[in-house]
Amino acid sequence: MKKIILIPDSFKGTITSTEFCEIAKAAILRHYPNCDVKSIPVADGGEGTVDCFLSALSGAKIQTTVKGPFFEEIPSFYAVIGDVAIVEMAASAGITLTESQRNPAITTTYGVGELINSARERGVKKIIIGLGGSGTNDGGCGAAAACGVVFKDEYGNSFIPTGESLRKINSIDMPDNILNGIEITAMCDIDNVMFGKTGAAHIFAAQKGADSDMINALDDGLRHLSDIIKRDLGIDVSQIPGGGAAGAMGAGMVAFFGAKLQQGIETVLDMVEFDKELQNVDLVITGEGLLDEQSLRGKVIAGVVKRAKKSRKPTIAIVGGVRGDISQMYANGLTAAFTINRVPEDFEISKHKSKENLSETVDNIIRLIADL
Amino acid sequence: MKKIILIPDSFKGTITSTEFCEIAKAAILRHYPNCDVKSIPVADGGEGTVDCFLSALSGAKIQTTVKGPFFEEIPSFYAVIGDVAIVEMAASAGITLTESQRNPAITTTYGVGELINSARERGVKKIIIGLGGSGTNDGGCGAAAACGVVFKDEYGNSFIPTGESLRKINSIDMPDNILNGIEITAMCDIDNVMFGKTGAAHIFAAQKGADSDMINALDDGLRHLSDIIKRDLGIDVSQIPGGGAAGAMGAGMVAFFGAKLQQGIETVLDMVEFDKELQNVDLVITGEGLLDEQSLRGKVIAGVVKRAKKSRKPTIAIVGGVRGDISQMYANGLTAAFTINRVPEDFEISKHKSKENLSETVDNIIRLIADL
Repeated sequence: MKKIILIPDSFKGTITSTEFCEIAKAAILRHYPNCDVKSIPVADGGEGTVDCFLSALSGAKIQTTVKGPFFEEIPSFYAVIGDVAIVEMAASAGITLTESQRNPAITTTYGVGELINSARERGVKKIIIGLGGSGTNDGGCGAAAACGVVFKDEYGNSFIPTGESLRKINSIDMPDNILNGIEITAMCDIDNVMFGKTGAAHIFAAQKGADSDMINALDDGLRHLSDIIKRDLGIDVSQIPGGGAAGAMGAGMVAFFGAKLQQGIETVLDMVEFDKELQNVDLVITGEGLLDEQSLRGKVIAGVVKRAKKSRKPTIAIVGGVRGDISQMYANGLTAAFTINRVPEDFEISKHKSKENLSETVDNIIRLIADL
Repeated sequence: MKKIILIPDSFKGTITSTEFCEIAKAAILRHYPNCDVKSIPVADGGEGTVDCFLSALSGAKIQTTVKGPFFEEIPSFYAVIGDVAIVEMAASAGITLTESQRNPAITTTYGVGELINSARERGVKKIIIGLGGSGTNDGGCGAAAACGVVFKDEYGNSFIPTGESLRKINSIDMPDNILNGIEITAMCDIDNVMFGKTGAAHIFAAQKGADSDMINALDDGLRHLSDIIKRDLGIDVSQIPGGGAAGAMGAGMVAFFGAKLQQGIETVLDMVEFDKELQNVDLVITGEGLLDEQSLRGKVIAGVVKRAKKSRKPTIAIVGGVRGDISQMYANGLTAAFTINRVPEDFEISKHKSKENLSETVDNIIRLIADL
């Protein structure tokens, strides 16, 4: 084993993708001390996305001050890697920043727009925005306003809409060339649309602090925003899968910034030039909490396997559990799947040993490979 | 993979060693249809020992009629493989034959002696006796009597001692050359001595149906037998590890038959000529229910690993669980240990899926090997 790529998702609640890489790398180096172990912890677009990219690729973490979810000034950050900026919306509009008062009616993504502006001023050619972990429901209007989009009420007064004031939008004026040709990709792993029963408000606003009346009001506001966008910008974002991501910032990214919504794993694979990394690789190790039939759809293992198969590299998944028939995953190129459960135990017990179980599992897989 | 040896112990209560071999072989052949898969399901000396040997080696299963545990005539069997006979004592003195009346005071190993006689008449040069699953506590006196050993009471009358009448033994007369030079090995995986607190009666008689009074009486009887053996035969069997096996038949085998007590796995490895089998092997797969620090002492994996290491063959263990520090097992030659738990689940749930979990686990290991 001269080169191994580690490219795992997190095991929700037990092992972050960065921890997976650290643990697996240590186990590999015990047996192949000279192995080139390339760690690519996969970001899901939420909190930690910037750090994931920075641990896979060299770049700079830029510290800056922007508006937080309540329009207060807060310290924030983004990454610049080559000519690409990585922004995680959670760094200025995240739910963990709203602990003092969970209220998606009044929270804003304004600071995300400020991070975009800061990155633009640095001359980047592309911006990747992680949509995830949001505490907002403003359809991305705050970010748009920070970047020059003008929202006016029925009296012609401009304002910065939040969840509760989306319904007051009477017109939208776009600036000329909002991003100066910068390409923008939004990482988004959910399929929910902007509004309606499966929309942002009905599915996600409760966990952000909304009661049922507020949820209905937020949903009405997003529906209204969609109508105005269609009328004034000529874009129908009402049915876009992922439009409901991050308090409907998914829809706003498309409407105001011309963003492409993309699966997180595809974004990571592109950014790290995975196809190039695969050259001269002996083994790819991916992983996630649960491997099942749903894993075929856009989750990390599926994305990794698809690319690795093209270059015929052995690709194994190390997972918390395998459920159901995963034969299609093998057909798609997965070499093998190993679970980390070293004894038969309920998850309530085993979750406290996940890291040592992962370490033992990787250790034994590498022992096998080394001895063949 | 041109040749793979399967040599597992059973997973107690969920997978027999024969089933392990069948399941693993099927999984291997899916990926290597032309692989020579050699199945050696390990017998532990108890019920099923004869069939285990017959599934690993070609031979004949000899049907015969002997005395059962209550001196009744029952159908029984043993195996002849080449010039070796395999006798399992459970086939004529087993606890499962005493379901009608569990009473180790009156049960006999007489039929075991008859099986030995039958094998001797066939001209075998060696007899392997599996000690395990016994329903007796006669110190092997029944078997000895069947083979010509004479036990006399204080009045000079000969009798066949059982548990309750051991104390009546006043003298023992050995026949000339009891086995005509046939080598005899008793498979025995426990260390308990003949009598006393860790002896046959105190540790095992309760499960055979004895109450505490009977246990004390049985223990006294064994102590008395040991004294008479020492006086009349000049052999001290009181402290032999394994002397307490199978209702102290371990001690009787040594005293009356000059048997060697040997770990089951060592007996199997010798019998199948494991060292020779290892030539041209690509992989050895062993297994057992639980791999832990105790596994170092005479259990199946430890025995297999030790021999395989000498010929530097990769040896993996597939187990129900790994507990504690098994680093010494790696140092002893174990390549790697994989567990069959495909999801984190309590054993009460997972035990019902052990076979499919084993199948999936072997399948994925072989997939990995095939793709490297």
